[in-house]
Amino acid sequence: MSLDKIKVGIVGGTGYTGVELLRLLAIHPAIELSAITSRGEAGLPVADMFPSLRGYVDLPFSDPAQADLSGCDVVFFATPNGIAMQQTADLLDKGVRVIDLAADFRIQDVATWEKWYGMKHACPDLIAKAVYGLPEVNREKIRTAQLIANPGCYPTAVQLGFLPLLEAGVIDETLLIADAKSGVSGAGRKAEVSALFAEAGDNFKAYGVAGHRHLPEISQGLAGMANKPVGLTFVPHLTPLIRGIHATLYAKLTKDIDLQHLFESRYIKERFVDVLPKGSHPETRSVRGSNQCRIAVHRPQGGDTVVVLSVIDNLVKGAAGQAVQNMNIMFGLAENTGLEVVPLLP
Amino acid sequence: MSLDKIKVGIVGGTGYTGVELLRLLAIHPAIELSAITSRGEAGLPVADMFPSLRGYVDLPFSDPAQADLSGCDVVFFATPNGIAMQQTADLLDKGVRVIDLAADFRIQDVATWEKWYGMKHACPDLIAKAVYGLPEVNREKIRTAQLIANPGCYPTAVQLGFLPLLEAGVIDETLLIADAKSGVSGAGRKAEVSALFAEAGDNFKAYGVAGHRHLPEISQGLAGMANKPVGLTFVPHLTPLIRGIHATLYAKLTKDIDLQHLFESRYIKERFVDVLPKGSHPETRSVRGSNQCRIAVHRPQGGDTVVVLSVIDNLVKGAAGQAVQNMNIMFGLAENTGLEVVPLLP
Amino acid sequence: MSLDKIKVGIVGGTGYTGVELLRLLAIHPAIELSAITSRGEAGLPVADMFPSLRGYVDLPFSDPAQADLSGCDVVFFATPNGIAMQQTADLLDKGVRVIDLAADFRIQDVATWEKWYGMKHACPDLIAKAVYGLPEVNREKIRTAQLIANPGCYPTAVQLGFLPLLEAGVIDETLLIADAKSGVSGAGRKAEVSALFAEAGDNFKAYGVAGHRHLPEISQGLAGMANKPVGLTFVPHLTPLIRGIHATLYAKLTKDIDLQHLFESRYIKERFVDVLPKGSHPETRSVRGSNQCRIAVHRPQGGDTVVVLSVIDNLVKGAAGQAVQNMNIMFGLAENTGLEVVPLLP
Amino acid sequence: MSLDKIKVGIVGGTGYTGVELLRLLAIHPAIELSAITSRGEAGLPVADMFPSLRGYVDLPFSDPAQADLSGCDVVFFATPNGIAMQQTADLLDKGVRVIDLAADFRIQDVATWEKWYGMKHACPDLIAKAVYGLPEVNREKIRTAQLIANPGCYPTAVQLGFLPLLEAGVIDETLLIADAKSGVSGAGRKAEVSALFAEAGDNFKAYGVAGHRHLPEISQGLAGMANKPVGLTFVPHLTPLIRGIHATLYAKLTKDIDLQHLFESRYIKERFVDVLPKGSHPETRSVRGSNQCRIAVHRPQGGDTVVVLSVIDNLVKGAAGQAVQNMNIMFGLAENTGLEVVPLLP
Repeated sequence: MSLDKIKVGIVGGTGYTGVELLRLLAIHPAIELSAITSRGEAGLPVADMFPSLRGYVDLPFSDPAQADLSGCDVVFFATPNGIAMQQTADLLDKGVRVIDLAADFRIQDVATWEKWYGMKHACPDLIAKAVYGLPEVNREKIRTAQLIANPGCYPTAVQLGFLPLLEAGVIDETLLIADAKSGVSGAGRKAEVSALFAEAGDNFKAYGVAGHRHLPEISQGLAGMANKPVGLTFVPHLTPLIRGIHATLYAKLTKDIDLQHLFESRYIKERFVDVLPKGSHPETRSVRGSNQCRIAVHRPQGGDTVVVLSVIDNLVKGAAGQAVQNMNIMFGLAENTGLEVVPLLP
Repeated sequence: MSLDKIKVGIVGGTGYTGVELLRLLAIHPAIELSAITSRGEAGLPVADMFPSLRGYVDLPFSDPAQADLSGCDVVFFATPNGIAMQQTADLLDKGVRVIDLAADFRIQDVATWEKWYGMKHACPDLIAKAVYGLPEVNREKIRTAQLIANPGCYPTAVQLGFLPLLEAGVIDETLLIADAKSGVSGAGRKAEVSALFAEAGDNFKAYGVAGHRHLPEISQGLAGMANKPVGLTFVPHLTPLIRGIHATLYAKLTKDIDLQHLFESRYIKERFVDVLPKGSHPETRSVRGSNQCRIAVHRPQGGDTVVVLSVIDNLVKGAAGQAVQNMNIMFGLAENTGLEVVPLLP
Repeated sequence: MSLDKIKVGIVGGTGYTGVELLRLLAIHPAIELSAITSRGEAGLPVADMFPSLRGYVDLPFSDPAQADLSGCDVVFFATPNGIAMQQTADLLDKGVRVIDLAADFRIQDVATWEKWYGMKHACPDLIAKAVYGLPEVNREKIRTAQLIANPGCYPTAVQLGFLPLLEAGVIDETLLIADAKSGVSGAGRKAEVSALFAEAGDNFKAYGVAGHRHLPEISQGLAGMANKPVGLTFVPHLTPLIRGIHATLYAKLTKDIDLQHLFESRYIKERFVDVLPKGSHPETRSVRGSNQCRIAVHRPQGGDTVVVLSVIDNLVKGAAGQAVQNMNIMFGLAENTGLEVVPLLP
Repeated sequence: MSLDKIKVGIVGGTGYTGVELLRLLAIHPAIELSAITSRGEAGLPVADMFPSLRGYVDLPFSDPAQADLSGCDVVFFATPNGIAMQQTADLLDKGVRVIDLAADFRIQDVATWEKWYGMKHACPDLIAKAVYGLPEVNREKIRTAQLIANPGCYPTAVQLGFLPLLEAGVIDETLLIADAKSGVSGAGRKAEVSALFAEAGDNFKAYGVAGHRHLPEISQGLAGMANKPVGLTFVPHLTPLIRGIHATLYAKLTKDIDLQHLFESRYIKERFVDVLPKGSHPETRSVRGSNQCRIAVHRPQGGDTVVVLSVIDNLVKGAAGQAVQNMNIMFGLAENTGLEVVPLLP
């Protein structure tokens, strides 16, 4: 182990974002893994729970009550909502940078956060210090951030799809529609009947039409791009995939513009956003296991409705991969370090 | 075999709509199956190709060139587009009623049909005589029809979802969005790479965003309900289901109205349209194998966007089941005869 | 409601065997449903939990503590192991016949049962009175039985596959191998991580190789057929199906015999066992949703190893359908009453 | 491009083994891709057909009739059976080493090959020069081989599972059973009805019980390990996975031996064979996308039947990954070069 390597801690390593972080970090050349905690599985070798990591991760889970993370350079929270906010202040005080993959620091307005997440925020003063970790929007702030709010999966796919249109001011921002479809791993590695194979398999449904927690996060992001409030209808759906989000976005054009050029020029320097050729339909499997977002933009029958198709792997660009991308930026590494994973197709 | 039974012929019995017709007709108490034709499989017992029908269907496929369908009371065409239009006139002349499950008679405007289907229509004069077989709209005309254009799968789910809103005139009909998701059986039982398990499995994509053949069919139907032209954006998607369509519909409300009541009262007498309680999210599996359409209507955050969720089994209410429903109406049977199949869940 | 109808109660209606019983009984012409109990869901309309039953089942779940099942003609237990044995004696005393879909009465040797199921048996005296409900073996006893032990899913597929060979004494009964594959619904509708879509989907594994509870049940049944103890290796696997069991059975032939004829003649009168033509490979989907077992027998390269392929729908012939078949026999109905459901293919 | 890099050609790049080779070679540090041919797609950029490769593979497919592969150091044939045998002699003459992922050189006995593959062999004299590319058996011969017959997918999983037992002579080699289950990608990227999502999805079946082409290949390999002919019953099954093979192997022990120790000691130095702890059940997803084979060995109830569970990714260790492993050995690279891909779980 090199003294130069970034010392990484992971809090909550037994969920899907945790194991995905481990998959990516296992072959990351610039880090060393210091500790992975789990309340329920302390003492168990990580690779006993996830045999896919045999030969790559030798550590056991450690007890969060006893793990000393103060020696880490950066700590990832791959925990349920409400955990990171209790431990972040202490870590920051010790000079440890924090990347929260949950939602604790994503919403700038505390009251909004508390309404949607149904709990009192433990450290509202830290929210303003948190940088929303969407590199395509906040890269410069991320470089020096001590605390990253890693975006949600739906918010990543939806924001990257609307971004060029809103920045350019070419759509009616009061009438946005995001029809999003997610694989079942988005529900997490939790024992819930609704996520059983025999429930979610060979089945398709919408959920949370009345209101989903990602709605205020997306609206906040889109408003930032538009520089004014937006009107958004967001309908998430569960589809029998393991991984993948497909967002189909609809908006009304207010200016006649070369959409293909708009998207290509906006993302030309972005390593992890790939604008497909005109007329394309991105498939979720084309990003399976990778940090890529692939986007196509359409204007059906030449009308004034623009349709954007945006796909990501919810566990990578929608979670662990984006977190590693943020870490790379924070520590001055090439942004794609450890992230050159070719998507698994078929 | 009773002399009173309806004599049924099926042209093209080897595709998914064909075998689905056989599944439903096998236990239909009022029909007898006279002939099933197949160009490629003449002579082969039907149950050799589809072992699920062993014990239910004893007939072999017969050669379409030799089969005499003139003794049938009704003939179903479960053929590719462009076949029925070549044989229908002759059958009608002989007093045989025809139900076409393909698209030959769905579009009233011949030029539109020829543009989208890429061939010359063989009998444009018959188009006007064809009744579009959506019982919830055209029940009375269906009773006496000699020729039924059985609706497409997407068109059924989308039209039933928009119907109450357009009839009541409570939405802006110029800005309709139909985001529809289909199982892979909708692509038919054809050897195509894109429908392989290793291509369509664990994958989600949109297709035909620039234009899909069901667009003019849906637009025609919606315009009939609205009594004026409509503006529709229709985006179909392929989802890793075997059966099922989920249409998510978006429109802008122009009147404040009790949406739940509107939908319930419109469909209260319809055996095969089920309006779910307020706040529901219909699942495709809740109609798997059945002729049911289930619908829920939402108004997220009390705004002026209405969201309708409409699910059907694409092979039943979206094809063979609706065809049987039409036959039942045409022959004065109870509309649900042979169609009381409880959905298969899980 | 006719006074002549069989009054049916179901204890434990919220699992997959429960909802499957309801699917089948909903259109059974000779029964009326008196009560469905659920500890956790008392008061909830059944169709609110299972929308597939809307229009078919109007009852709410009732509280098992308050439900009076003594007026029923027959009660099905669709409960976890260990429940039926606590309530059966009381019901039998009141003249109510009982069909247990769990394992409480399947093993005749109490010590064996207690070892594999890890609990003390509540009514060992009743075990001898229970009839093992495999109609193809015990039809006559079932007619007059007061208590039926409905076979397990794997045991049904495996026993029906070995039955003709063991009865005819043409294989070495000391060296039987049953390699069985089950869909995930076999794990029940329980919130368990291992049955999540993102765990069991796109994945295949064996489990319980050291010993599975169905092993003693199968061995007991096979020994009965062979009239002597058998040596069985049983390896169950989990496959990403919702429904279906495929048992691949291997044995060493001790006599040269026409295997196809042996199987066909043994099952010629059985409505729910279908011996496929020589050279066939039954698919699980060919019995999806139906009470059918389909079997093919092979002798690869003309050697002395016989290979039997046996498929069932684990929730139908492997559970609820076989229970209804048993009920039909017990009450003198045609054995296929309510069970003429054509398999759902595709 | 470094002059030192190994120049690689691929013949037939549009199938699943082709795209999988490209996925692995895209990030292989010691090679450069010179040409990829395709009869049907000449001129098309590879990444247009497989968007997952965008940014990794810039080449178009080239016309096999015009492509000059003589400048390559090694050429992979990812073609249907019968192609490589027509071009190999010419390439070898020019000093190009060849790795055939198809079956042309797998069977040493020409008559056997011609019988099972139904064609005349084009260059029977080359068969003896071909080295069967199972590194765990033939590593030393592979180092200097000019022509590699890359093993089939089933043969890899089955042979690695039986290997320690046969080499140690502890089982009855006349009574081997291999019950193998494969994902659908094993059928290739060919338009065939039986591999459609709506056919192979939610379905499980055996096939080829009377005889499968991999039978003679496996038997040949096992005989080599046992130093005598073996008796093998091989039953392949199709399971609704995209990737993965699970072989469940049965044999009769002839010696009492510590099986766990036998397997661990045999494979202790093998990078790509992982013997799991006693009592384990390997899952196919634990090797998804990786070149790993994971094996567990069981002796149920302490009897004399040994059960081996062996899993691989059919496209990696069962095809393209093993081919790269062979190339690494042939060119003196570390065997795991470019193959340290962490399995994708979930």
